[in-house]
Amino acid sequence: MRKKVVIAVAGSLFLLGASKSEDVKLLEEAKRYFQPLPKVADSKENPITPEKVRLGKMLYYDPRLSKSGLISCNTCHNLATYGVDNLPTSVGHRWQIGPRNAPTTLNAALHIAQFWDGRAKDVEEQAKGPILNPIEMAMDSPQEVIQRLSTIPEYVELFKKAFPNDKNALSYDNVAKAIGAFERTLITPSRFDKFLQGDVNALTKKEKEGLKTFIEVGCAGCHNGPALGGNMFMKFGVVEAYWEATRDFVTLDKPTVPVDVGRFAVTHKQEDLYVFKVPSLRNVSRTYPYFHDGSVWSLEDAVQVMAKVQLGKELNKDQVEKIVAFLKTLDGEIPKDALEVPILPASTSKTPKPVR
Amino acid sequence: MRKKVVIAVAGSLFLLGASKSEDVKLLEEAKRYFQPLPKVADSKENPITPEKVRLGKMLYYDPRLSKSGLISCNTCHNLATYGVDNLPTSVGHRWQIGPRNAPTTLNAALHIAQFWDGRAKDVEEQAKGPILNPIEMAMDSPQEVIQRLSTIPEYVELFKKAFPNDKNALSYDNVAKAIGAFERTLITPSRFDKFLQGDVNALTKKEKEGLKTFIEVGCAGCHNGPALGGNMFMKFGVVEAYWEATRDFVTLDKPTVPVDVGRFAVTHKQEDLYVFKVPSLRNVSRTYPYFHDGSVWSLEDAVQVMAKVQLGKELNKDQVEKIVAFLKTLDGEIPKDALEVPILPASTSKTPKPVR
Repeated sequence: MRKKVVIAVAGSLFLLGASKSEDVKLLEEAKRYFQPLPKVADSKENPITPEKVRLGKMLYYDPRLSKSGLISCNTCHNLATYGVDNLPTSVGHRWQIGPRNAPTTLNAALHIAQFWDGRAKDVEEQAKGPILNPIEMAMDSPQEVIQRLSTIPEYVELFKKAFPNDKNALSYDNVAKAIGAFERTLITPSRFDKFLQGDVNALTKKEKEGLKTFIEVGCAGCHNGPALGGNMFMKFGVVEAYWEATRDFVTLDKPTVPVDVGRFAVTHKQEDLYVFKVPSLRNVSRTYPYFHDGSVWSLEDAVQVMAKVQLGKELNKDQVEKIVAFLKTLDGEIPKDALEVPILPASTSKTPKPVR
Repeated sequence: MRKKVVIAVAGSLFLLGASKSEDVKLLEEAKRYFQPLPKVADSKENPITPEKVRLGKMLYYDPRLSKSGLISCNTCHNLATYGVDNLPTSVGHRWQIGPRNAPTTLNAALHIAQFWDGRAKDVEEQAKGPILNPIEMAMDSPQEVIQRLSTIPEYVELFKKAFPNDKNALSYDNVAKAIGAFERTLITPSRFDKFLQGDVNALTKKEKEGLKTFIEVGCAGCHNGPALGGNMFMKFGVVEAYWEATRDFVTLDKPTVPVDVGRFAVTHKQEDLYVFKVPSLRNVSRTYPYFHDGSVWSLEDAVQVMAKVQLGKELNKDQVEKIVAFLKTLDGEIPKDALEVPILPASTSKTPKPVR
C-alpha cells in the first residue's frame, strides 16, 4: 500500500513536470505572437496627464457634445458594457442607424489606426469624427462644439489646466486630445497577461489548449500583439466572400448595407476592397455582436466564420470550444477611475439649447 | 489709536452677537419648514438591503431594459447630470419625444407620490412605468422584461440573492423593488442640511438672506419638508394661467403639448385640473429646464414665474438673486456608490435581440 502511494506520488510529480514543460513551451510560443498590455497607451504627440484624463473623461460622458444633448461617447461606447453598445450597428441623432458596428474604446489606443477602415490615425483623430457625423452626434461644426463648451466656465478652466501651454486652450483639437488621453488609459489587463508574464497557472488546461489551437489554426497570424489584433489591415473574406458566410447568422432587426467595401472607400485602391482593420480580441466575449456589421451574435459562430473565410478551415466543435475558452481569458479589468461617473458642470444661460 | 481699535473690536463683537442671534432666529424659523435629509429613504414594504441596491443599480444602468437595448433608466435620469437629462422633455424609443420633463431620481423616494401627476405611489411603482411605456423604453410586457433577464444567469443569481424569501425571485415586481431600493439610496445632503443641523455658518450672508426671502415671500408654503417639495399637490397657476406666464420663456426646439391638464388626467376631478406634484428643490440649480414641460431654462426666470403665478407677486432682481443663491445651497452630494458604473452581465445566445 505504502509502495503504491509512493509510486503514485512519483508519477504525479513526473506528470506535473511534463505538463510544466509543455506549459513553458506554450508560453514561449505565445510570447512570439503576443505581449502583455502596457499600463497605458501613452503618446508622444498627446502625453497623458491627470488633468487631460480628468477633462477627457468628463467630455466622454457629456451628452452636450451632441446636437440633441442626449448622446455622449459613452452612449455607443458604454463602459458598463465594455466600451460598446452591444447593438449590430449604433443608433444616432434622431434614431438614425449607423452602417457599422461600434468598436470598443477599450485598448483602442493601441491600434495602428481607428475605425473599421482605419481612416483616423489615432484615438485623438477618431474622437473628432462621431461628434460631427450627422447620423451620430450631429454637431454642425467644430465651432459649434467650442461655442457650446465656452459657455460653461468650469470647462473653460479645465481646458486651461489640461493645456497650460496653449494660448487657445479650448479648441476642437484639444477636445480630441483630452478624450484621446482618457481613452489611452482604458487598458484592460486580464488573466492572459499574467500568463504572458510567466504565470503558467493563470490559465486552465482547457484555456491553454485553446491558446494552442488558436495559434496552430492560424488565428494568431492576424490577431497578435498586445491587443491580439488592431495592428494590421486584412481582407475580410480571404478564402470566400464574408457575406456568404455570415448570411445564415444574420438576425438583424433592420438590415444594414449588405456588402461593405471596407478600406476601399478610404484609399480607392482595388487591393483594399473588403479590407478592414483586424479587430482586437481583448474583451471579445463582451463586445458582441461581431464583425464590422454586427451580423453574428455568438462568439462560437464568429470563430467558425473566421476560420472558414480567412483560413479556409472547418473547425470542429471541440476546437471552437477551446478557442472560445481561451478568448474569455482576454476579458479584462476596466480601470476603476474610468468607471467613476464624473459630475458634469452646469450649462449657463448662454449655452445653446439642445436640438432634438 | 489703541482706543479706536478697542472700540472697533467691541463693535464687531456686538455686531457678531446681533448677527448670531439673527442667524439663530432664522434657523428656528427654517426648522419650522424644513428638515435635514435622512441618510436613505427606507421603506417598510421594500426595505433597503445591499443585495437589492447592488442589483437595482445594475438594472438602473442596463439598457437591456429597453426594447432597443439602447435606453436605460440612466439615459433620462443621468446621474452625471443630477438624475435628469437636462432636456425640456425626454427622448425615447425611436426618438419619440415625451410630453413631460424627466424629474430627477435624486431624493425622489422621499416624495408622497411619483411622476408629475402623482400617478404612481412610490419609486417602486414608478420604475414599472417607463420600461413599458411605448414612447420611452417600449418593452411590450412585464413578461418580455423577465424573459430577457432570465436568459442572463448572473441576473438570475442576483435576484435570488436580493429576494431570498421569494419562490419566484425574478419577477417584474422585484425588478421594480430592486430599482426602487437603489433609488432610495439616492439622497444628496448639501450645505443647507448642515445649516439645519445647527451650523449657522454653513450658509453665506447672501444665502441666508435668500432663505429668509424664500420663507417671507411664501415659497416655503409648498416647498417644504426635507426635500423642499415633493410632499403635496398644487395647482400650477393659482393666480394666473401658467402657460401665459411661461410663454415668453419657451425656447423649445420642438413644441410640446401647450396645456397639460396635470393630475386631472389621473383623477378626472375638476379640482385637479392643472394640478401637479410640487417638485423638490433639492439640486434645482442642476435640474433645468424647469416645470413639467421644461419650458423655462433659467432658474431666475423660474423663480419669477412661480412668484407671479402661484403667489401673485412680482419679485425684484435683488429678491430673485438672493433666492437663487439660497437654492444653490441645495446642490448636494450624490452618493459615491451610485456613481460607480456597474459592469453589466453578458447576454447569452438565448437573450432576445434588441429591436431598434
